[in-house]
Amino acid sequence: MINAVLLDLAGVIYDGEEVVPGAAEAVARLRAAGLPIRFVSNTTRSSKPTILARLARLGLSVASDELFTPAEAACFWLRERGRAAHLLVHPDLVSEFQDLPADGGMAVVIGDAGDAFDYQALNAAFRKLVDGAELLALAPNRSFKDADGKLSLDAGAFVAALEFAGQRQAIVLGKPAPGFFHSALATIPCAAAEAAMVGDDAETDVAGALNAGLGQALLVRTGKYREGDEARFAPVPTATVQDISAAVDWILARRHGTE
Amino acid sequence: MINAVLLDLAGVIYDGEEVVPGAAEAVARLRAAGLPIRFVSNTTRSSKPTILARLARLGLSVASDELFTPAEAACFWLRERGRAAHLLVHPDLVSEFQDLPADGGMAVVIGDAGDAFDYQALNAAFRKLVDGAELLALAPNRSFKDADGKLSLDAGAFVAALEFAGQRQAIVLGKPAPGFFHSALATIPCAAAEAAMVGDDAETDVAGALNAGLGQALLVRTGKYREGDEARFAPVPTATVQDISAAVDWILARRHGTE
Repeated sequence: MINAVLLDLAGVIYDGEEVVPGAAEAVARLRAAGLPIRFVSNTTRSSKPTILARLARLGLSVASDELFTPAEAACFWLRERGRAAHLLVHPDLVSEFQDLPADGGMAVVIGDAGDAFDYQALNAAFRKLVDGAELLALAPNRSFKDADGKLSLDAGAFVAALEFAGQRQAIVLGKPAPGFFHSALATIPCAAAEAAMVGDDAETDVAGALNAGLGQALLVRTGKYREGDEARFAPVPTATVQDISAAVDWILARRHGTE
Repeated sequence: MINAVLLDLAGVIYDGEEVVPGAAEAVARLRAAGLPIRFVSNTTRSSKPTILARLARLGLSVASDELFTPAEAACFWLRERGRAAHLLVHPDLVSEFQDLPADGGMAVVIGDAGDAFDYQALNAAFRKLVDGAELLALAPNRSFKDADGKLSLDAGAFVAALEFAGQRQAIVLGKPAPGFFHSALATIPCAAAEAAMVGDDAETDVAGALNAGLGQALLVRTGKYREGDEARFAPVPTATVQDISAAVDWILARRHGTE
């Protein structure tokens, strides 16, 4: 039985500034079927308002509380533990980190900083780790499909760099952290076993969702998908389908647990 | 019995542009005792001529064939296998990579590029890995003692970044690769078990040398050494001493295997 759907954004709903063909209609079909949807994105180069505006331009009306971002999860984590943040994030994401604790210990927060990943910024973050700061990773993704169609380095590479040099493990806040999937489902509410995830990242979206207890996780062959990804990480996808439209077909066919 | 000594440079012989007090005298005492010396450095921000000139300024006359650098080892590796190099190294190191194969497969060569580690350069290297290039790490060190006395990110962090994103393991050419220690000892020649290593890096110098079969490895409390380093990596040092002078005292006292 599928009672809720979690959707990834980049590579599933849009590719760069272009909508994935059929994505808006596919989401509309889920809504028409009465299936609650939450969007869970590891994109950390854009603020939440920027992402919502992009979705609106592409014909998808998404409410703010339907979209879950690692930056929100990080702010929650920092406030709950009273930690000040040393930000190593994209300039467009800085506005998401407001009214945070000023002392009580320090955490380095790393997202996909893009061109802001330079030696001096990485070294400044490393020195905070040497001084005892914790390391919060907004997302551990290895790569993403860039505007030119090729794969580019995502935040995970730089998380790995700081983990290695700082000799500590990052606390991951976005996918594949189970808490990220669970907090989105808790707002429905829906049990993990009755939810399906759709993503283009076989590791963070698909294996991550299944490890978090979701009943189904579909891999789409759009976005960063490369031939063979469905066999590259465990657990493997429940199904691998062409795109979001095919994923919605698959989900609606199983909506009432008839298969 | 100790019949040869391998010495690290940065943090042992010099700290930035300053000689470690007593280092020149300590090296002279080894030479006077008739002990063959080789210098094995993972420093990849300077070319070999620059390193030799710095040693001369500090009062140490070192012949070119007494100094072993990862860049030389990389050029040997590339020629032997007929691989073209995509360099992600410090501008001062580029001159070391001459007359290399132009085709026959590609290898990304990564050293401590310093400020040349920016997103675009790292991403260009990553894309070579996606296209099937091999990954050669001149050195996997986590950090080094910088000019301001603090630890700074060394090449190893960026090696870890590319290993993670490229989903492959780097081939390490400098310390702690056993072949790097062995090729230095082969020029004497001296069996590994009869050689002693002196370094300030408990991981690459000390544990690396012991894993390579060297009979002794001494950790000095200069350079990047931090309290507790002697217990942080296995195997632990044969002895931990104040500096290169104390290391030479220790070695000369055991010169003939009397202890």
